[in-house]
Amino acid sequence: MGSDERAIREVHSTWIDAVNAGDRNRLLGLMADDVVFLGPGQAPFGRDGFSVGFSGAHERAHIRCISELEEVVVVGEVAYTRSRDSLSVIPRTPSAGSGQAPGNAMQMAGHRITVYRKQPDGCWLLARDAHTL
Amino acid sequence: MGSDERAIREVHSTWIDAVNAGDRNRLLGLMADDVVFLGPGQAPFGRDGFSVGFSGAHERAHIRCISELEEVVVVGEVAYTRSRDSLSVIPRTPSAGSGQAPGNAMQMAGHRITVYRKQPDGCWLLARDAHTL
Repeated sequence: MGSDERAIREVHSTWIDAVNAGDRNRLLGLMADDVVFLGPGQAPFGRDGFSVGFSGAHERAHIRCISELEEVVVVGEVAYTRSRDSLSVIPRTPSAGSGQAPGNAMQMAGHRITVYRKQPDGCWLLARDAHTL
Repeated sequence: MGSDERAIREVHSTWIDAVNAGDRNRLLGLMADDVVFLGPGQAPFGRDGFSVGFSGAHERAHIRCISELEEVVVVGEVAYTRSRDSLSVIPRTPSAGSGQAPGNAMQMAGHRITVYRKQPDGCWLLARDAHTL
């Protein structure tokens, strides 16, 4: 395994840990300025959309993501990966007296293709991402 | 626009025309041997899965795809594109006396990220594809 592939596997692993920790700033540091995310039933979004969506999701629910890399292909300054992902979304208990009923836990599973770009400093950042969950 | 971007735009346009024409062999000629397709609600599949799925879909329905390229990024021997796609699936009329009721037409819309690889002969082939339709 070359050093680029190792670096990308590390970014992937750091990404998943940060998703589960609710660490939005860590995630923003792993994505390119012009990043674009695609997912079923929503319009493509970038850094700002990610930021708002991620914070909102973590306020409303406990999120647990598991992602297994199925391939990492590095070609010069670009790499693409494929992973098998699963996501548990467990709504947080509404505060007492809020009148809200607790929501139902959701389990989602699917796959993901991510495109990474190598930066001038040698770091790899997430540039494009499409999932089917 | 460089010659690589022009070539990729032409592959994209040829691809959509071939989808609408039901021309499976043309499509197989535009994809890499190790191609992988991802879509919601289905396991990833390659050439064989594409071939079987595409023929079956065209036997059962008239398919009309419209795809608008939103970006083409070429980096050396790799390129990635993003498109906005819509798909109409109109079930073919069952043969008289078959006892089958006609199905309902379906309209789907979403986005797609495709990764292309440049071949030694200079052609670009579709290598990975994930859509959210």
